Amino acid sequence: MKNIIVGQSGGPTSVINSSIAGVYKKAKELGYDHVYGMVNGIEGFLNDNIIDLDDYLSNDENYELLKRTPSAFLGSCRYKLPKFEDDPDTYKKIFELLEKHEIESLLYTGGNDSMDTVKMLSDYAKENGKSQKFFGVPKTIDNDLPITDHCPGYGSCAKYIATSLKEIIRDNESFNKSRLTVCIVEIMGRHAGWLTAAAALAKDDNCSGVDAIYLPEDTFDLDEFLNRVKTLAETKSSIVIAVSEGIQTADGKFVCELGADDRAVDAFGHKQLSGCASTLCNIVAKETGLKTRAIEFSTLQRAASHLASLTDINEAEAVGARAVEEVNKGNTGMMVTIQRVSEDPYKSETDVYDIHDIANVEKKIPDEWIDKENKQMTEEFIKYARPLIIGELLPIFKDGVPTHLVRK
Amino acid sequence: MKNIIVGQSGGPTSVINSSIAGVYKKAKELGYDHVYGMVNGIEGFLNDNIIDLDDYLSNDENYELLKRTPSAFLGSCRYKLPKFEDDPDTYKKIFELLEKHEIESLLYTGGNDSMDTVKMLSDYAKENGKSQKFFGVPKTIDNDLPITDHCPGYGSCAKYIATSLKEIIRDNESFNKSRLTVCIVEIMGRHAGWLTAAAALAKDDNCSGVDAIYLPEDTFDLDEFLNRVKTLAETKSSIVIAVSEGIQTADGKFVCELGADDRAVDAFGHKQLSGCASTLCNIVAKETGLKTRAIEFSTLQRAASHLASLTDINEAEAVGARAVEEVNKGNTGMMVTIQRVSEDPYKSETDVYDIHDIANVEKKIPDEWIDKENKQMTEEFIKYARPLIIGELLPIFKDGVPTHLVRK
Repeated sequence: MKNIIVGQSGGPTSVINSSIAGVYKKAKELGYDHVYGMVNGIEGFLNDNIIDLDDYLSNDENYELLKRTPSAFLGSCRYKLPKFEDDPDTYKKIFELLEKHEIESLLYTGGNDSMDTVKMLSDYAKENGKSQKFFGVPKTIDNDLPITDHCPGYGSCAKYIATSLKEIIRDNESFNKSRLTVCIVEIMGRHAGWLTAAAALAKDDNCSGVDAIYLPEDTFDLDEFLNRVKTLAETKSSIVIAVSEGIQTADGKFVCELGADDRAVDAFGHKQLSGCASTLCNIVAKETGLKTRAIEFSTLQRAASHLASLTDINEAEAVGARAVEEVNKGNTGMMVTIQRVSEDPYKSETDVYDIHDIANVEKKIPDEWIDKENKQMTEEFIKYARPLIIGELLPIFKDGVPTHLVRK
Repeated sequence: MKNIIVGQSGGPTSVINSSIAGVYKKAKELGYDHVYGMVNGIEGFLNDNIIDLDDYLSNDENYELLKRTPSAFLGSCRYKLPKFEDDPDTYKKIFELLEKHEIESLLYTGGNDSMDTVKMLSDYAKENGKSQKFFGVPKTIDNDLPITDHCPGYGSCAKYIATSLKEIIRDNESFNKSRLTVCIVEIMGRHAGWLTAAAALAKDDNCSGVDAIYLPEDTFDLDEFLNRVKTLAETKSSIVIAVSEGIQTADGKFVCELGADDRAVDAFGHKQLSGCASTLCNIVAKETGLKTRAIEFSTLQRAASHLASLTDINEAEAVGARAVEEVNKGNTGMMVTIQRVSEDPYKSETDVYDIHDIANVEKKIPDEWIDKENKQMTEEFIKYARPLIIGELLPIFKDGVPTHLVRK
């Protein structure tokens, strides 16, 4: 028997399922007997909770539907694999299960934490003479993995952000100056501003774009912000500003902590990082008397597969397929990367890289792509990001809403 | 000269521009010389701010683009026409401008307040022997106009709500029970719950739907709500609840006022009605320790023309065209309505009705369409709303984002 297993981990995206599709198709081409999926990642696998993807993907219609299904079809987890020395039993269990199901290779789609899991398992296998191969399949809307030009999941999220901001700007412009509203839109990305930067893609020949973009890569100065709003309000009849959820002041305070409102904490007493737009709206309203509106894209931005980028879907499928090819050749302990091989027309290819140089490294936006004075992105950023949002794979609508593929 | 003018008023929608398209096309068919548009409604008209729609719509490509452009192409206003006895000069000015531009008829697209404007102007004309005709073109995402089966704008907003909720549910289901999140989604509609009720359309053979729907038509009981959340949390690994921004407790308090946070007030000191989902999330987190997430659809729901309903677009175009036919026949002081003439297959026709029976009357959801015990909608509601979200008119994408038509 020649079997392979794939798991999904971390925050879902619009195209993480396209990587599963790519894994399945390539594995079948290469003669694998069973292509298994972990239900809820390694956490589910440890409970022997797996499915056979033949039960879902052997017909073409379901395959097409999977590529149009947002979130993690297999279910995801946020399970942090313990170090071997702290918990050898977990490693023993994982390899027992791999042997039980005659699984040669394990593929894991995810971001930084998930790549750490791939690293630890492949290191363990090498050190202990195990034959199983482990490979990382990149996935993160945050686009913060190093080495790879960009990450599957980012393009679709960026397309949602650009499209929705264009629609928000259009809406906000509908009244005249007497009803000026300062609209502050909060976008995901705590440490890296790639998603917030995508707000710049709303600007084109029929849209004036957002008035300012505040990134976590740049220190947030409340006085500068308020002055900018006041200056814009003198001439404009609509103001729309994009802010990252992770913007911080010079003393390292998150902007959402500037307000005094008692926000929700989770069961462990952790503050939930949200509400930076509404905090800023409260401050603007108090300081300027202007009408304000806070909008948070929340999970909409990572789940809107009805607006996914075809470029992103194709690349997500390709990185899944490439991972199968690699483990089939006997490679392990690596992640698939995307290389931009041509600018115009845009063209990308997959490649692979040692997982040790990727796990736990965070890629931020290069300084020269940020116009800090005008709070905008430079042309270099636009040139980088624009190709990633091109193309559509339209939903299959049934009774007025997109149809998805779900586990039984 | 035979001229006509159309204006847009009130909150924008995804399809209000399709009504302008319908007006233009029909007026040209019927031989009108000029089809004018008011810039920012009556407020702009009073400043003689008008455009000639020939400058934009005489080519087919722009016409198609207009139907895919959200918000008010002409610009909107929230201008309340004074009573004649309080301000005769305003009436004098409006009729002077109509005469100056040789305008025979004035069409106004909007909701309740806008229909009041049509009523007052047509009454004034009749009482003062003026020949100009005035006609209302219904438009409101709130769907709360009486007489008409439904209002253009509602179907597209409902389609956005159903689609986005399906995607939110999919996202929220991606983790297992250990990471249960209570997601509370706030939907527009202060007095009538038509939009929030559309959350019920997220349910189909591949989606279990929202767990509860809280409408302004039903008194909000915080204890009942918390008990429901606790019960759901015992068995479910994902909870998604739809709430109207307008839900109120038995003593008439808006739910967003239950929290203690100091929310933004506008320049006039008015409390802005928002934040009911985040108020409820704060309460749930405190009372149950569960992880929560508040999502507000905000202006996204009324501006998402990329997800407009084709049924809605076609009807919006038809009501605009019908208004032109009516004034051309010499009728005045009425509004176009939509009649449902067949259930299966769904088929509608336009009709007209005396504006006096429409202005300032608010239509709520019939009691028998609300399953108050289970906080769900009945089959009758689904049967009513489902046909309104059917069909798509896909955007014209350029550089990865939808293109819109804008005024020069």
